[in-house]
Amino acid sequence: MSSSPKSAEKVSDLDGRPPESTDFANYFCTYAYIYHQKDMLEDHKRTGAYYQAVLSNKRQFQGKVVLDVGTGSGILALFAAKAGAKKVYAVEATNMAKNARLLVEHNKMSHVVEVIQGTIESIELPEKVDIIISEWMGYFLLRESMLDSVLVARDRFLAPGGALYPSHASIFMAPIRSNLAAQRTSEFQNSMEGWAEFLHEMQHYYQVSLDVLSDGYRSEQKDYYLHTSQWTDTHPQQLLGPAAPIIKYDLNKLTLDELKAPLKSEFVMHMTDGGPVDALCGFFDVLFKGSDENPTDNEIRLSTAPDPTGATHWGQQTFPLHPPIDCAPGDRLRVSVEVTRRADNQRLLHVKAAVSVEGNSIYAEQSKTPREFRWNIE
Amino acid sequence: MSSSPKSAEKVSDLDGRPPESTDFANYFCTYAYIYHQKDMLEDHKRTGAYYQAVLSNKRQFQGKVVLDVGTGSGILALFAAKAGAKKVYAVEATNMAKNARLLVEHNKMSHVVEVIQGTIESIELPEKVDIIISEWMGYFLLRESMLDSVLVARDRFLAPGGALYPSHASIFMAPIRSNLAAQRTSEFQNSMEGWAEFLHEMQHYYQVSLDVLSDGYRSEQKDYYLHTSQWTDTHPQQLLGPAAPIIKYDLNKLTLDELKAPLKSEFVMHMTDGGPVDALCGFFDVLFKGSDENPTDNEIRLSTAPDPTGATHWGQQTFPLHPPIDCAPGDRLRVSVEVTRRADNQRLLHVKAAVSVEGNSIYAEQSKTPREFRWNIE
Repeated sequence: MSSSPKSAEKVSDLDGRPPESTDFANYFCTYAYIYHQKDMLEDHKRTGAYYQAVLSNKRQFQGKVVLDVGTGSGILALFAAKAGAKKVYAVEATNMAKNARLLVEHNKMSHVVEVIQGTIESIELPEKVDIIISEWMGYFLLRESMLDSVLVARDRFLAPGGALYPSHASIFMAPIRSNLAAQRTSEFQNSMEGWAEFLHEMQHYYQVSLDVLSDGYRSEQKDYYLHTSQWTDTHPQQLLGPAAPIIKYDLNKLTLDELKAPLKSEFVMHMTDGGPVDALCGFFDVLFKGSDENPTDNEIRLSTAPDPTGATHWGQQTFPLHPPIDCAPGDRLRVSVEVTRRADNQRLLHVKAAVSVEGNSIYAEQSKTPREFRWNIE
Repeated sequence: MSSSPKSAEKVSDLDGRPPESTDFANYFCTYAYIYHQKDMLEDHKRTGAYYQAVLSNKRQFQGKVVLDVGTGSGILALFAAKAGAKKVYAVEATNMAKNARLLVEHNKMSHVVEVIQGTIESIELPEKVDIIISEWMGYFLLRESMLDSVLVARDRFLAPGGALYPSHASIFMAPIRSNLAAQRTSEFQNSMEGWAEFLHEMQHYYQVSLDVLSDGYRSEQKDYYLHTSQWTDTHPQQLLGPAAPIIKYDLNKLTLDELKAPLKSEFVMHMTDGGPVDALCGFFDVLFKGSDENPTDNEIRLSTAPDPTGATHWGQQTFPLHPPIDCAPGDRLRVSVEVTRRADNQRLLHVKAAVSVEGNSIYAEQSKTPREFRWNIE
């Protein structure tokens, strides 16, 4: 028995291999549902940004060979075809490839778009490509580690001077007010009260003492409630100061080794309002600038920053701080952050941060030693 | 990188191998959390039934060698030790084995209970055992397919005349009134209305027609809303007639091949009340009778039938019928049912049923051809 998504039916003669079955179970499986594709497609900030990036830069696509990494429903491949691409290779690891092929046929683009089923690592293309387009971003940009596959595609298939869409990506953090930390702390406390009752019951009913598991339970629940970031639709009014960039990637230059290494960054957030700072709000943007040799005519930005009109489907990742950090308007938060892949699942992330307050307020005086925080991004 | 739960640290010299990593990702992973163990332990109908099965049958355990298959927190192994077992092998595949060992030490039973980490298929024991105890039941009894491992343990390790705890298991179905089918039908319709809007948007914003995916989406959503059973806490007042047994297993005699084969059964449900029958309610019980050679003194039953005091953590599995089946008091529903393992994940189930109405009412007359239904148990 295998969970792998590949049925006997071929999508293309260029089909590669399906994902490894554990990676399929942990990750790829959700992308095999039209329901999930719809969720992404109807995020019009997302789909609209890609549409603009391609259709407002037709000159860059006309007569070109394009590769779409993780085409899903095939939408980006269709955009590229509409913009005048000569040939689009649309690669998808899951059975969604079959739907992508249907969609391409139905929209009469089969003469341009070739859907290929298989992982990008396992397929071969008959030629180099001028453009690689991909929607690879996960929560906090890096969750899912799908950028790995785009860099592999770039190194294997992109012609010299070719362009990546998007070409640049940045991660930001901002200090915010939020009831998340207080709510999570209260949920954690309730959970530990429940545990105490449970211990009592187990002793009373079965004469078994489970005390020795209390530390393990506490640590498990703390991880869940206090050391896990959360999807939020943060309102800009929650910001206590402007967001600071953690890192900016030039995807033309980033190497796979650099991407896989822990991301370490030190940055400063300027407090416009005073604290308490309840949480750090993490988000990203990507830019469509093309390459140096083939820049776009119209530079498009897809941002997932807090937005009064509502979040993209990525929302923001909010990292609760408990207890909150006190500071005054004009203070600065100095943050050392480290983002690593989880040992138990390389597509999930672990974030560590050390935060200290700088400035002229009493809080800066009190908080010279950085406070340390850690979170999982689930 | 491996998702397997085995750390370098040994639990016992008898440790076996961890689960295969895809099976771990799909199945074993949840059992590695104390939170989940707590959920099961504090189901006192469950834990209490095992406690009674062991502690009210001390004579059967005194001086015996016991094997606990999938010991989790170690609780059943501790019960067996309390009842006077000479030796208990407590086998657990996940890292929960480490907590089980702590619990055994803390409750001063290390001289009796030996916790072993590994799958039951991969471990070796130095002796045959007199009793195998295990809490292997999943939703609708068979979900999780963990009984496989108990039968493997029986065939590998149980001494002739030895006993299984539990020794017998039955699955039942009952006709019920329920708003589940109506609710699911309405949710499905809403979902399809949402799809129509979505198609319109995609055409309008991006000049792409996604019509061709409508059949796929409809089928996906139908599977989700209408062809998936649901956990319910069914009240006995919802029953429209007594439950009928689908199958009764004597676990001493059941073979692994029989268990893995499709379960086919035909049975009749007598309608005390009239319809419409909105759903079939599936549940199970297990019996602790020991073996023919070593019967229990006190026979204990653990039932997951609808109960006015509330469900066990298994609840019932409710299978919506849409449209509902009309019938009158005194009619009979004849049901042919087939339960198979899912091709994409052997631990999940697929259920097919053909239902016809028999009796003297007009409904029986109208419904001579059996109506066919199918559901996934997720």
